[in-house]
Amino acid sequence: MSIGPMASVSRTARIGKNVTIGDFTIVHDNVVLGDDVTIESHCVIGHPTPLAEGKPLVIGAQSLIRSHSVFYEGSTFGPELRTGHRVTVRERLVAGINLQIGTLCDFQGHATIGDYVRTHSNVHIGHLTTIGNYVWIFPYTVFTNDPHPPSDGFHVGVTVEDFAVVATMVCIMPGVRIGTRSLVGAHSLVTKNVEADTVVGGVPAKRLCATSEVKLREAARTPAYPWMRHFHRGYPADVVAAWIEEYGQPAAPGP
Amino acid sequence: MSIGPMASVSRTARIGKNVTIGDFTIVHDNVVLGDDVTIESHCVIGHPTPLAEGKPLVIGAQSLIRSHSVFYEGSTFGPELRTGHRVTVRERLVAGINLQIGTLCDFQGHATIGDYVRTHSNVHIGHLTTIGNYVWIFPYTVFTNDPHPPSDGFHVGVTVEDFAVVATMVCIMPGVRIGTRSLVGAHSLVTKNVEADTVVGGVPAKRLCATSEVKLREAARTPAYPWMRHFHRGYPADVVAAWIEEYGQPAAPGP
Amino acid sequence: MSIGPMASVSRTARIGKNVTIGDFTIVHDNVVLGDDVTIESHCVIGHPTPLAEGKPLVIGAQSLIRSHSVFYEGSTFGPELRTGHRVTVRERLVAGINLQIGTLCDFQGHATIGDYVRTHSNVHIGHLTTIGNYVWIFPYTVFTNDPHPPSDGFHVGVTVEDFAVVATMVCIMPGVRIGTRSLVGAHSLVTKNVEADTVVGGVPAKRLCATSEVKLREAARTPAYPWMRHFHRGYPADVVAAWIEEYGQPAAPGP
Repeated sequence: MSIGPMASVSRTARIGKNVTIGDFTIVHDNVVLGDDVTIESHCVIGHPTPLAEGKPLVIGAQSLIRSHSVFYEGSTFGPELRTGHRVTVRERLVAGINLQIGTLCDFQGHATIGDYVRTHSNVHIGHLTTIGNYVWIFPYTVFTNDPHPPSDGFHVGVTVEDFAVVATMVCIMPGVRIGTRSLVGAHSLVTKNVEADTVVGGVPAKRLCATSEVKLREAARTPAYPWMRHFHRGYPADVVAAWIEEYGQPAAPGP
Repeated sequence: MSIGPMASVSRTARIGKNVTIGDFTIVHDNVVLGDDVTIESHCVIGHPTPLAEGKPLVIGAQSLIRSHSVFYEGSTFGPELRTGHRVTVRERLVAGINLQIGTLCDFQGHATIGDYVRTHSNVHIGHLTTIGNYVWIFPYTVFTNDPHPPSDGFHVGVTVEDFAVVATMVCIMPGVRIGTRSLVGAHSLVTKNVEADTVVGGVPAKRLCATSEVKLREAARTPAYPWMRHFHRGYPADVVAAWIEEYGQPAAPGP
Repeated sequence: MSIGPMASVSRTARIGKNVTIGDFTIVHDNVVLGDDVTIESHCVIGHPTPLAEGKPLVIGAQSLIRSHSVFYEGSTFGPELRTGHRVTVRERLVAGINLQIGTLCDFQGHATIGDYVRTHSNVHIGHLTTIGNYVWIFPYTVFTNDPHPPSDGFHVGVTVEDFAVVATMVCIMPGVRIGTRSLVGAHSLVTKNVEADTVVGGVPAKRLCATSEVKLREAARTPAYPWMRHFHRGYPADVVAAWIEEYGQPAAPGP
């Protein structure tokens, strides 16, 4: 274990083997860190809140939390969490394996995230959001939950199904369902459900085409979606093998 | 008074009774903290600037400033300020009672904010903005001030009147006035004044309907606006009593 | 040299004369700071990464990095860099003289920025972006690079030519070129190249007019663009003299 001389770590926190904690980081009491976890500098880990109802913050093994991040108690992450800098995560979020959270993301808690999800920088996830597995979310995207703000007792979250991709600067309205393997284009306002394997875009977003019509720019031989046809970096070997069996070997990039 | 052993607090700062200051927080000289104020960890309070012209940073009693926030000298907040994490507030902002500032908000100073205003995460408030009382501003909204950037001597701020609601990811152009009890829809670009009791939306924003036409989703018996009809959480008893007298008792949420 | 008693500064960092480093800041090994540089509190300077391939972080003389910022090793800045708070800059960025980076900006590295560029708050610059000289970029603007996310080997960056202005909350699609002296209006999605001296706006952005048709609001005698006609604050005397020779003395603001 390697704890910075200017870190402040609670004696009651349960800390695994081979954990690294940077200077100027505070680890509170109600925290469980798996083996081989790295917490960089200037973080607040396990910030107390009565809304956690006593549940700990659990960070799975082999995770990396970058500097200036704030995690509240009461959320649970599977192994291999990786964050950017200055991430904020509130209580009662449950996330699976190998979640990647970009710099400046603001996860409000009270939400569910599956396995192998990637969110790029500055994504805002409101209460009651449900995100499936292998989902991609690009920068400055906001998941809302209040159909007529401000209100109480009427909130309904966004649902994103497996393998969906939400591009940059998108606002998704309360209760919308983003279908599996769909693509939401950049700078869109999504007010209605998005069907599987469909591209939508605009303000408000409308159906543009089937995802199969989007081609890889330099290799027009192959469709760009589902992206599992050609993008394998960072996924486990058995998952990639299954994708190759379903979609074939990816085409090489063009000349 | 409870000051973290690794905090750095100026001896000339004027600090009230029962104040709590977290580790790794810096409190500069020209600061006035009211009674029962809590400053969490990793903050910079009263950052010096010649633009403050010697005026102190004044934080009213019973305020809570969450971690990693930066407040410059020369701004004044009434009692019961509550912030999220990593808030930035520059000099020459004047705010009333019970302002709530969300995580990541960036208030550029030289602005006026009334009482009981709530801004959600990541709201950007430019110079010369004027916000009334009981206003709501949702995430990723930007208040601009320069009609033909960059320029000097032509800036004109946005004005938001009492009880108005600005939804998520909205950009408001310089000099625009958002009328009382109006609603600006998500992902809009507001280029013209918004009339009272009106819903606008789109890029550029156009009038969509009267606010009275928006119904509470699960209780269509009652209109959703003015929101004071049904949303009372967090306001003082006398204010809520006046709203009930004006609008009647709120309908219970539907089955 | 003035180093805060609670700063952590590597002995192998190469630090110029008259450098100031705030409390709770970490300066790593592979860092070169020019003379008269100020690093405020709570920063991480020279964060190690194998992607830097051993190259140092170089900060030119007379630079100011504000609090809570994170700079990786492997990037180079000319003299007079000025940042806001909580800026993030990754490896392999090369920037010229007098770059100004606003609060909350997220520069992903692997990019090139010219001289006298100003980015306001919360600008996201993706890999492979190329920005010329004297460019202005306003808040919540995102430069993308992946034409069909997620993909590998197909990324292409945005190019912004000299003197161009990109307004607030704009998303620029991969490979787009923003022409010299052009203006991209607020809340736009730019999907195609923008010609020189042209105003575009909308989702998707379309040509609105020539920049010469935009007038200064209170001094309609003079066009607002090119902005070098009337905005000179912060530029060197010889540059301003050349602009006055080309465009004449600026008109005074109207009555």
